[in-house]
Amino acid sequence: MRIIGIDPGVAIVGFSIIEKQNGKITLLDYGCIRTAAGLAKNIRLHQISQDLKELVQKWQPEMASIEKLFFQTNVKTAMSVAEARGVIINTFTENGLELAEYTPLEIKMAVCGYGKADKKMVQQMVKMILNLKEVPQPDDAADAIAVGLCLANSLNIYLATK
Amino acid sequence: MRIIGIDPGVAIVGFSIIEKQNGKITLLDYGCIRTAAGLAKNIRLHQISQDLKELVQKWQPEMASIEKLFFQTNVKTAMSVAEARGVIINTFTENGLELAEYTPLEIKMAVCGYGKADKKMVQQMVKMILNLKEVPQPDDAADAIAVGLCLANSLNIYLATK
Repeated sequence: MRIIGIDPGVAIVGFSIIEKQNGKITLLDYGCIRTAAGLAKNIRLHQISQDLKELVQKWQPEMASIEKLFFQTNVKTAMSVAEARGVIINTFTENGLELAEYTPLEIKMAVCGYGKADKKMVQQMVKMILNLKEVPQPDDAADAIAVGLCLANSLNIYLATK
Repeated sequence: MRIIGIDPGVAIVGFSIIEKQNGKITLLDYGCIRTAAGLAKNIRLHQISQDLKELVQKWQPEMASIEKLFFQTNVKTAMSVAEARGVIINTFTENGLELAEYTPLEIKMAVCGYGKADKKMVQQMVKMILNLKEVPQPDDAADAIAVGLCLANSLNIYLATK
């Protein structure tokens, strides 16, 4: 099973491509889609959907895992990220991917076994689980790997409840 | 200039098709896209984008006018509507439409000349401006007509500032 993990945003969308085969998890790719602050919102959203489509065509993931929006103190930012989430989700659906969504709590529980884990702990666990030499950079990409791992870890449960 | 007006939502998306030619405004169509509550969110978002595409193909609008999200007390609902907005905006961008966004205040000012107008006043003004026999139903469609009218009324200003 090949998974694309997403940490949603408008300026930066973190992504990861994770493969789980015979219980073994491999990180195939990770990085960020970036959109320029000077562009109109609709152009930025469109770029995200285009860049995601290219990633899907390149890596052919079967499922997508995306972080659920944590309610932020800045409502305007939260609304923008939600708009980007909508575009991302629809791009995956248009390309035939199944979708799983996880809260930050669920991601921390899946990766660290501890819901109150901080960002650094999550990043260290990501590094350990995937046998990486360094913590993946930037944070958005590391978060996207964590949400991808969350689905990879709960794949048996997810498929059984479908 | 042909305009599609949108009152965004997940369960119901109100739409209107408005034409402005030589200063005369005509309502060509209006109605709602509805998605079933039992469906998964990604399927509902995808249906909205598909139905919108059909409307765009049928009516060939050149510009879209969409209501900006008013911050609601129910944050979860607001986030869902924002996701739908993202999908709607990207569907228009993919189909080459220009986008204008208006706050509820701007819509009330444009349609009633009064920012504190209530829903009924807006609906009565919509009926008057368009010479309709009755107030358009349901509310979501009437709101979509109002946001379309808002762009139609400010078209000269909008085009001058582009």
